[in-house]
Amino acid sequence: MPYSKAHLSNYCKEALTSVGVSAEHAAVVAAVLTSADERGVHSHGCVRMEGYVECLQSGGVKADAQWEVVSEGPAYALIDARQGLGIPVSVAATELAIQKAKKAGIAIVNVNNSHHHGACGYYTLMCAKEGLIGLAMSTGDIIMAVTGSSKNSIGNNPFSYAVPAGKYGAVCYDIAMSTVAAGKISMAADEGHSIPLGWLLDNKGNPTTDPNDYAKGGPLMPFGGYKGYGLSMMVESLAGILSGAALLKDIHAWNKNPEQGGNVGHCFIAIDPALINPSFNVPERAEEMLDQILATPKAPGVERIYFPGQIEQEKEAMAQANGILLPPATEHALERVAALTNIPFSKQ
Amino acid sequence: MPYSKAHLSNYCKEALTSVGVSAEHAAVVAAVLTSADERGVHSHGCVRMEGYVECLQSGGVKADAQWEVVSEGPAYALIDARQGLGIPVSVAATELAIQKAKKAGIAIVNVNNSHHHGACGYYTLMCAKEGLIGLAMSTGDIIMAVTGSSKNSIGNNPFSYAVPAGKYGAVCYDIAMSTVAAGKISMAADEGHSIPLGWLLDNKGNPTTDPNDYAKGGPLMPFGGYKGYGLSMMVESLAGILSGAALLKDIHAWNKNPEQGGNVGHCFIAIDPALINPSFNVPERAEEMLDQILATPKAPGVERIYFPGQIEQEKEAMAQANGILLPPATEHALERVAALTNIPFSKQ
Repeated sequence: MPYSKAHLSNYCKEALTSVGVSAEHAAVVAAVLTSADERGVHSHGCVRMEGYVECLQSGGVKADAQWEVVSEGPAYALIDARQGLGIPVSVAATELAIQKAKKAGIAIVNVNNSHHHGACGYYTLMCAKEGLIGLAMSTGDIIMAVTGSSKNSIGNNPFSYAVPAGKYGAVCYDIAMSTVAAGKISMAADEGHSIPLGWLLDNKGNPTTDPNDYAKGGPLMPFGGYKGYGLSMMVESLAGILSGAALLKDIHAWNKNPEQGGNVGHCFIAIDPALINPSFNVPERAEEMLDQILATPKAPGVERIYFPGQIEQEKEAMAQANGILLPPATEHALERVAALTNIPFSKQ
Repeated sequence: MPYSKAHLSNYCKEALTSVGVSAEHAAVVAAVLTSADERGVHSHGCVRMEGYVECLQSGGVKADAQWEVVSEGPAYALIDARQGLGIPVSVAATELAIQKAKKAGIAIVNVNNSHHHGACGYYTLMCAKEGLIGLAMSTGDIIMAVTGSSKNSIGNNPFSYAVPAGKYGAVCYDIAMSTVAAGKISMAADEGHSIPLGWLLDNKGNPTTDPNDYAKGGPLMPFGGYKGYGLSMMVESLAGILSGAALLKDIHAWNKNPEQGGNVGHCFIAIDPALINPSFNVPERAEEMLDQILATPKAPGVERIYFPGQIEQEKEAMAQANGILLPPATEHALERVAALTNIPFSKQ
């Protein structure tokens, strides 16, 4: 049975306020998580409620944290999240970047002392809906090997950009830096399948096809070899170093140690094409780009060519029409939230 | 026999001024090309002189073009390159971005009506040398298939970032979006080797191990599959659409049609950490990041772990001590320049 967005959203709000989060912040978290589920990005949807509630209850995330802008100019700001939830401060940072970019042409807002970022694409789509180009990225705990390493040595640091694209809505690219998400490897382990070479190393640094090596401490591999490693370092630099957040091994694996603060760093960049290139209609031109890309001849066996974010956009439209189908893992997580908070979760 | 940088640089200047380029612009082009050769990036070094001279002689590039800033604010600028050489305007755009970022915290400078960009890493290193984080990118003619396509449908759009890193100099990531450069495929064809799957499609869109398929119109493949395709679209958006430059198939393959203007677009972003995060020493923190990365345990068979740009930096130091070794292709290109310009090229 599909869930209505309102049902899921109300549950998230109720559970979060029950552990001390303000109604305003709880509403923002609920909107961001349910949006990810609508887009089929279940790894960043309501399944995260369990970890958030654990962190809030154990004090690793402070429910009543008030973020503070610690440095600011017309085109930049730096925000100290004061160990609060990552999602509300990320939405606020994006709003600030948009507001500044509309006056300055471009703006960058960095955040430190933050926590789990949620789906990056939410923030870049906020920019695209305002006619702006957006970039968003975040550090994460080290679960990937840099090229040549045998150990977890860098995060699979998520990165997103979005571009307004007229009739196509928006291009929205939202990736992590590993070849595949850890969830896909755990699923192969559960189902007893082997995995292709290039996804994972064993805990001695040898390439492996055994998904069980992940649970034994084997690191994920960066996508595209050293090119993915280098992009991950870009995110570490812009979201971690520039923000003054923790770096690499000092970023706590919050989902393993809920009571420890994460000091995660984020970076948001918004760009207003209307200021930079006033003689040019960027969304129209992005439409032309997509017209051309989508009309290119298909390779044998290929049914459709997609632009980045198109699949998620179509899933979103479907979920908005028919409700949200949740995977079992998300339902289990919400049942666990119910046990932790005593706020019953009713299936629809 | 290695060449001295002065010898190569003087030759480039003399050949370029002989076809109408100002002494000032010729000196900039010579510095950028010889720097690429010093760094071992020969594909973007003096070998490019042949194409530049052909374009200048046939009018596809205007030797006396004067670029113009067509829109400007404290944190942004848009420059019309007026069909001039890509390198001098790229250096000027980077200088402008640095100057603006030092006051605004971040700045973006876009360029349209431009030509071949040279090695992107030159511009981001200019930023890093000033203590800034730099990003640079450029459109290029379509020689790569988007995911699912059988044909050339997007450029392998180069992208670079650099971060100042104290005792390590700078991190400098400089990549194109294809799995490997076209030059590597041509070399395999010349030497009669097959190539791994994942590098190239044949001209019907089938995966191929035959490097001769490149000359028959087979497209390069993006690195990391759809993740590389999506990054290429980011560059197309920021350097092409936002600049108001040509898009996709309208970007002429200047090395095949020297008499046609290219309308290539570039984008440069400079970020000043000292303004954004004054309580923090970014180069010191980047040093700590690299200390940690370089000390991570190595996988079996791996001799060293590198940071992005480290190999090129070491080659540069070697070339500055011992002179520049040029590959035969570059020497042939310079002999061809000599034939085109009547300025003799002497081997050292």
